[in-house]
Formats: sequence, C-alpha cells, structure tokens
Amino acid sequence: MAQRKAPDVVIRRLPLYLRVLEVQDTNESPIISSEQLAKIIGTSSGQVRKDLSYFGVFGKQGVGYQTTLLSTELRRILKLNQEIRVGLIGAGNLGAALVRYHQKNRAHQPLEIVALFDIDEKKVGRKIADVEVFHTDKLANAIHEMEIKMMILAFPAENVQHIIDICIENGVKSFLNFVPASVKVPEGVKLRTSDVTLELQGLAYYT
Amino acid sequence: MAQRKAPDVVIRRLPLYLRVLEVQDTNESPIISSEQLAKIIGTSSGQVRKDLSYFGVFGKQGVGYQTTLLSTELRRILKLNQEIRVGLIGAGNLGAALVRYHQKNRAHQPLEIVALFDIDEKKVGRKIADVEVFHTDKLANAIHEMEIKMMILAFPAENVQHIIDICIENGVKSFLNFVPASVKVPEGVKLRTSDVTLELQGLAYYT
Repeated sequence: MAQRKAPDVVIRRLPLYLRVLEVQDTNESPIISSEQLAKIIGTSSGQVRKDLSYFGVFGKQGVGYQTTLLSTELRRILKLNQEIRVGLIGAGNLGAALVRYHQKNRAHQPLEIVALFDIDEKKVGRKIADVEVFHTDKLANAIHEMEIKMMILAFPAENVQHIIDICIENGVKSFLNFVPASVKVPEGVKLRTSDVTLELQGLAYYT
Repeated sequence: MAQRKAPDVVIRRLPLYLRVLEVQDTNESPIISSEQLAKIIGTSSGQVRKDLSYFGVFGKQGVGYQTTLLSTELRRILKLNQEIRVGLIGAGNLGAALVRYHQKNRAHQPLEIVALFDIDEKKVGRKIADVEVFHTDKLANAIHEMEIKMMILAFPAENVQHIIDICIENGVKSFLNFVPASVKVPEGVKLRTSDVTLELQGLAYYT
C-alpha cells in the first residue's frame, strides 16, 4: 500500500504510543483499544486511529490493536529496531546532564550516545556516564568512523551552522538542538530545536 | 472583537515570532512582512498571518507589521509584560543545568526562577546560579509566599502526580515537565512534557 507522508506532529506522537504499549502487561492486556491509548496520552481515539493509519496500521474494529504487534510495528516505523549511534556536542552542564539522563532512562533503547565533543582541551579524554569526550576538531572523522547518524547540540551559540554543516557532510541525518540560534538544514535532514526559554515563554500564556 | 481560542501549536510559535522581532534593528526595519517572519522561522506567510489573526493582530496589506508594535502585542498576549515567578523541582544535574542555562540566556525576560526544591537535605540552603534550594517539604508554603505561577519538574519519576497536585492546589498554572511519567492536570492548567528520550526516538524516524 502506498503510504501518505506522515507530518512531523504525527511522528512526534509515535514514541508516546510506544511508551504506553511498553509498560502494558501483554498477558493482562494482549489487546489495547484506540480509546485506551488516547486516554493515557491525552488525545482522541480518532487521532490515534488516523495517526496509525498513515503507516498502514489498522486495529480490528470494535476490538483494538494487538499490543505486542503494534509495539513491534512502531519500533520498525521509527527505525528503533536497529542500533542508532548518537553524538553529543558540548560537554558542559547541559550536555553532561543530557547524557547522564539518557543513560539512566534509556533502558532497552537502541539509541546509544557513543561520543561527546567539546573544544575544551581539559575535557577531552575524560568520560561522562561512560562516554568519552573527543575534541571538536575530530568531529568529521569521528562521525564517519563511529557511524553517527544523530547529533545532539548542547554548546554555546557560536559557529552552530558551521558545526551542523560538518555533521551533515559526514552523514548525520537528524539533530536535537538545544542551541538558541537560527540554523538551517537541507531537505532530507531533520533538525528539532528544544529551547527551554521558548518553552517557558509559551507557557506564560497559560499562567 | 471576540477572539477564537488559539490552539497550543499556535501559542508555541508566538515566542519564536517574538524572538525574531527582538533581534531586529527597529531603526533599520521599522516594518516586517509576514514573508520575512515566515522565512526566518521556516513556516509560510499564510501561517504567520493566520496565527496572529487569532489575537486580532493584522498587518497592513502589502506592507507588513510594525516591528515594535507587534513585539509589544506579542509580549502582552503571552503575558510576558509582567514578571512571572517560576520554581524548579529537582536540583540534580538536569535541574542545575536548566537553571544555569535559563539565567544565562534570559536577558530581559520577565520569567524569573525564584526557587529550587529538592528532597536532599545536603542541597537545601545552597544556591545554584544565585537561586536558593528549599526542601520539597516546604513546597506548598513557598509557592504561596513567593507567588510561583509556573513550575519546572526535573526530578526522578516518583510521586510526580502528588507533587503536581500540591503545586496546583497552591496556584501553579503551568508546568514544564522533564519527568518521564504519565501525569494528569485539570482543565485550566497547562502541562508540557519535554522528554529527551521521546525526542530522540521521534528523530530516529529521520535517520
């Protein structure tokens, strides 16, 4: 079946569905309904069905989805059925917190942070949460050799575009960006910015 | 004019518009078009116009928006024209990184982190980036006395719902949540979850 291109907002919900499925006891709940999924996530059952239909995944009407099967499908769709090697640039406070947090919470995730990068010579060679810090000068080679496909950006906003360009030239396909700067990526590369200040400003609306 | 209720996705773009406006030189660019705004943010000019029309803000056809005026309007809409007192629960790695990051980048933002909370007695009384750490036992009183309206959650996922309930009972209206747990808030309270693991899983799709 030809698949329609799923919008980014749909892709963002898939890991949420997956998380819900993974905490289910599959003996107790071999089947989960779109209503149940929707309720836990805080969306509508119609939204759940529509989201999953983008990938040709349909539940049985009036019954629901097979928990294990849906979980496997979601992992396949998200490419989480294979190891993905992740790098992190910026071994400062934020970078260190991110890598520690990820290592602690990753459980059986195939996303592995394999290298940290920093321009500070004093940090190079050290390990944070068992991940070695390399000099940013070695970025191009390291990405290539370690086959890093995803990069987390957590360094002060200088030269961001230049760093991103090096990453892309060497095969990085997606970025999680914590750097408050305007940056551009070409078609076929995904960059998502996570900016605490922007988030807080948006939340001010609701105070 | 009666205002339609703006969806959350629109609210999330407003701080982006504001950031663009604030870096403009208003002498050089007293007027900014929806096309210019759209281009910097990576959306369409139609989207910009539609977003702003939710709040009765209309540019002059074929000309654009007055930079200073639009900036003032956005601050008013987002309630950033007043001080908003923010608390942060969890003075661990992530919490410390967040408060340092916010203090460094906040510039003239009216969002002020006024208190940190932690259950670790050893941290209580210390200061991180000039913000004092209080014991989580004192949460209810502190929220009340310091008039905290927004809370950042950055502690390990235990008792999250209980902590959130205490916050809400004492007047917190919005949450930025970094805790990987399913939580509920009543109507009229906003909780946004920022979860690095979920973000990375979503980005795997694009690798």
